[in-house]
Amino acid sequence: MGLLKAKPLVYRPVKDVDLGPHSDEFYLQANVKAPRMTGILVKIFARLMEIPLLGTLLLYILKGNNLIHKLITHAELEEPPLFVPLHPFEDPKEQEVKCLESDLSPVRQVQLATECLPAIYSEKKPSFFRWTIMDYHRAYNSGDTTPFMVAERFIAAVSQSANPPYQMAFFIDSNNEDILRQAKESTLRYERGEPISVLDGVPVAVKDEIDCLPYPTTGGTKWLHKERSCKDDACCVKRLRLCGAIIVGKTNMHELGAGTSGINPHYGATRNPYNLTKIAGGSSSGSAAVVSAGLCPVALGVDGGGSVRMPAALCGVVGLKPTFGRVPHSGVLPLNWTVGMVGILAGTVEDALIVYAAISGEIPSHQSSNIPVHLPLLGLTKSISKIKLAKYGKWFDDCSDEVRLCCSQALNKLQEHYGWQTLEVTIPEIEVMRLAHYLTIGSECSTWLDSIREKYVAEQGWDARVALNIYGAFSSKEYVKAQKIRNRQLQFHKKIFTEADVIVSPTTGVTAYSIQDDALKTGELDYVNGAALIRYSIAGNFLGLPAVTVSVGYDKLGLPIGLQFIGRPWSEATIIHLAFAMQAICESEQRKPEVFYNLLSKDG
Amino acid sequence: MGLLKAKPLVYRPVKDVDLGPHSDEFYLQANVKAPRMTGILVKIFARLMEIPLLGTLLLYILKGNNLIHKLITHAELEEPPLFVPLHPFEDPKEQEVKCLESDLSPVRQVQLATECLPAIYSEKKPSFFRWTIMDYHRAYNSGDTTPFMVAERFIAAVSQSANPPYQMAFFIDSNNEDILRQAKESTLRYERGEPISVLDGVPVAVKDEIDCLPYPTTGGTKWLHKERSCKDDACCVKRLRLCGAIIVGKTNMHELGAGTSGINPHYGATRNPYNLTKIAGGSSSGSAAVVSAGLCPVALGVDGGGSVRMPAALCGVVGLKPTFGRVPHSGVLPLNWTVGMVGILAGTVEDALIVYAAISGEIPSHQSSNIPVHLPLLGLTKSISKIKLAKYGKWFDDCSDEVRLCCSQALNKLQEHYGWQTLEVTIPEIEVMRLAHYLTIGSECSTWLDSIREKYVAEQGWDARVALNIYGAFSSKEYVKAQKIRNRQLQFHKKIFTEADVIVSPTTGVTAYSIQDDALKTGELDYVNGAALIRYSIAGNFLGLPAVTVSVGYDKLGLPIGLQFIGRPWSEATIIHLAFAMQAICESEQRKPEVFYNLLSKDG
Repeated sequence: MGLLKAKPLVYRPVKDVDLGPHSDEFYLQANVKAPRMTGILVKIFARLMEIPLLGTLLLYILKGNNLIHKLITHAELEEPPLFVPLHPFEDPKEQEVKCLESDLSPVRQVQLATECLPAIYSEKKPSFFRWTIMDYHRAYNSGDTTPFMVAERFIAAVSQSANPPYQMAFFIDSNNEDILRQAKESTLRYERGEPISVLDGVPVAVKDEIDCLPYPTTGGTKWLHKERSCKDDACCVKRLRLCGAIIVGKTNMHELGAGTSGINPHYGATRNPYNLTKIAGGSSSGSAAVVSAGLCPVALGVDGGGSVRMPAALCGVVGLKPTFGRVPHSGVLPLNWTVGMVGILAGTVEDALIVYAAISGEIPSHQSSNIPVHLPLLGLTKSISKIKLAKYGKWFDDCSDEVRLCCSQALNKLQEHYGWQTLEVTIPEIEVMRLAHYLTIGSECSTWLDSIREKYVAEQGWDARVALNIYGAFSSKEYVKAQKIRNRQLQFHKKIFTEADVIVSPTTGVTAYSIQDDALKTGELDYVNGAALIRYSIAGNFLGLPAVTVSVGYDKLGLPIGLQFIGRPWSEATIIHLAFAMQAICESEQRKPEVFYNLLSKDG
Repeated sequence: MGLLKAKPLVYRPVKDVDLGPHSDEFYLQANVKAPRMTGILVKIFARLMEIPLLGTLLLYILKGNNLIHKLITHAELEEPPLFVPLHPFEDPKEQEVKCLESDLSPVRQVQLATECLPAIYSEKKPSFFRWTIMDYHRAYNSGDTTPFMVAERFIAAVSQSANPPYQMAFFIDSNNEDILRQAKESTLRYERGEPISVLDGVPVAVKDEIDCLPYPTTGGTKWLHKERSCKDDACCVKRLRLCGAIIVGKTNMHELGAGTSGINPHYGATRNPYNLTKIAGGSSSGSAAVVSAGLCPVALGVDGGGSVRMPAALCGVVGLKPTFGRVPHSGVLPLNWTVGMVGILAGTVEDALIVYAAISGEIPSHQSSNIPVHLPLLGLTKSISKIKLAKYGKWFDDCSDEVRLCCSQALNKLQEHYGWQTLEVTIPEIEVMRLAHYLTIGSECSTWLDSIREKYVAEQGWDARVALNIYGAFSSKEYVKAQKIRNRQLQFHKKIFTEADVIVSPTTGVTAYSIQDDALKTGELDYVNGAALIRYSIAGNFLGLPAVTVSVGYDKLGLPIGLQFIGRPWSEATIIHLAFAMQAICESEQRKPEVFYNLLSKDG
């Protein structure tokens, strides 16, 4: 063993690392060494990996090629491990926010969120827009339409989109009877003039990683629900129901969240509403795509490694991942315990805010209780005098030309328009953080799944089989060392947040790429594109920071591009302010997807 | 791999587990399958384990034999992992305590602790007793002796004890010049009538796992200090110095804390002052032995797996392990991050209380700050009307006949004397917890050491080489699963603590066993005796609970026996009350060790 080890890499003490713009810290580009594989190749590779000794050897080589040995396994660093990124509350001193009292009901929090919306909300409509929660609420209130009529249109639209020529693969399950029952109840409430909240009668889709009756929770598999039955709504779903929302079904996802393409061999590849030959991104592929296609103003996802923000960016919608611990995780599949968080996909920043208000707040007596919820007063975003954005140039620019150009222009406009400053910084060891996060989420995921998946191996997708084999191949020392890297990175980020309020970056390194026919049945292994998609997501998960993506433009093929804001712990209000400001600037350039349903107007 | 796996063990949901006295939960006795090895056998075994493939196979068999595969690796349990046992503060509603304000100085906390001592303190002396902190302080104040005279006697005693025929191996390093310098300063303070606190001039020894100038921190090795230099006092040492204590040297320990015998091949086997042919226990062997032998009224140790309580019990002194996070760990070797805590070895409960007061309290801004320190009013212990002790009979009785009899009698006397109640309970899966703790401390220890120890393999003790090889052999999935077991056990303990205030047990399953000659150079592997020594220690470490041991009698050979009280998080005051009550009952039966120094009286 000693022979195979290289001389250990010794990380510099954090205090000696220069985070300024002229730092000599090397920017290591992800140089993923794994060929793209689909079809028969994936099958062969999966089988090889499952051969005991050969599999171990293959994994050893894979880890070595991808620098895991050098950057993590054999590296030396001083920091103690940080196992869970649960941050104590320190008032982020946000501007123009409303501070909620603790233990308010979801309905009350939603009401307070609507008071934060700008007055001009929904009066001036740009050329293309998606109906918002307030649009639904007003239409129901005015009697222009009813939740029941919307539900009927929704059912028709889902049926159409699921079949040729579309085959969007939005949903894993959607129960018409259940939808109509909810819609009827909501319609009655509006008829009585007693809607529960602005969310009453609004269709909301839920990623199939979150428990939600009457559906089984498949996690994108054909078997998981046989081993783990769904007995109750997840806490976040309960809160939405309390507000009167109509839960319209379980959205498609990358199998077990173990990939970023959203190509699911069992339920189909979720197609990008902007271009049906392209992926939607993942793992919350269906939730992003249904919002993009106008089927719901909002949907729930789970973000363990960019899984909300990434598909949101690729599908041209808003994706919000709150601070770790902000939303209770009871009823969410335990695919990990230290990096994931329920997130929100929405057509507009305003709608993301409303749903954020509905589901936020820990259950009393939980260890992160007493963390106050702040809501941004979006009517006053313009009066925020000073926000400092941190930008790490080498990282920001490590993406396709079109993404770079589009995001840079958007950022410039934001600065011009609001007079906010951008600070050049260096964030060291981003690729190390990606690997440490991969090791962490993989170890946790396989801890849960390994004992229960064994008898279903044949029912698993080939790409998921490979992913889970890699996930399960780390040592406890590697896991603990990854947690040391987590602590180290948190210190870097904390230092940057003493100078800046948010970190700005593209959301993904590339736009949605093509779905290849041979990937449909086997899934695909594309770690190169995967790394490009996930490049900007990791701090949000590994460090538990809140982050939001907002659509800022399109590439030449018309595929959406997202810009991301990462905030201090518990500073959701600030990043929502920023996303709102950015949205206002880009609003006039919004384009309509190829597949789009208009459920509020009679001509559908 | 699939072929080797047994059918997974599925743990019952916690809510369905009966913790009552008639529970059907099976008590699994530790059935350690590993032969005792010393001398050439250890050498051969260590070398075999270091052969890549063969070593892996050996480890696999060892883990299987010891039920790790069945009880942890392949087991299924619902609980999410709990990585760090850092408990939120919930007022344990303790009786007869003094609540300290936050951020008091160590000197002030010590002053308040002395106000908690019983009025009759040190007036009535039993046949044998060790001088206490207050005895030193009074002798210095009265001019009967001076710190300088004590220091001279101390130096002479250490020199005598280190050489034949004793060869006690108390210290790894003790710098006479440094001791005399401190003693001179303290003597001047007393001459001026300005002692800093009751600790002024009191000799205190420090385990060589804790940074303390001018000494290197060896961790019981011959090489660690070459890789990691000691640049400053650890926080706990600083606090003692602030109170005027004289730091008299670095005590011997089991190499890297990786064993329980205290047999160190580099610095000698620490001998038990009650019987020089017996071990002192470990890993804080020297700290326990110097207190037992009267060289210091108190010493510091570190308790990661009973390492303070176990040698304390074997050497007939008091051992206190505070709640996880109670004492800052800066300057303590990072041999683990989630199970260890600085602990106190003392001749009396009163002295343990004084030092506890001196070193307790987190550094402001640390995540566990704002946890108040409560001190027990020992003068009022008798007036505590109601304390409920939980006892798990099968576990309590899983020890040698002599230990069982002695501990049972002590407990009976305590109940009779104070009218306190004992509640029969069942604590399930104690052996599972031991294995999960072993896996955890092993993984963390080897994470830190593996990268730095490689070039010093030849300088390591043979038993430590074997231990570290086993430590490093776990997978990340096993580590995460061990953390799930931690959560599960914490739930059991929390449930028991809704009914009872403390859990009572023997401190060790056996008394000090013999040091065999062939172990002196190679160390020994004695996992059977090791398991018996550690049997009652784990909850204190793995769940972060406070625990204290107090000497309650002797076996036929005159070797001490300890009784342990385990408390709720942050309830040190309660367990110190109990230890004090127990000590009062057993005081008249205290026996003098074979090797004992009396530094306060002129005849030494």
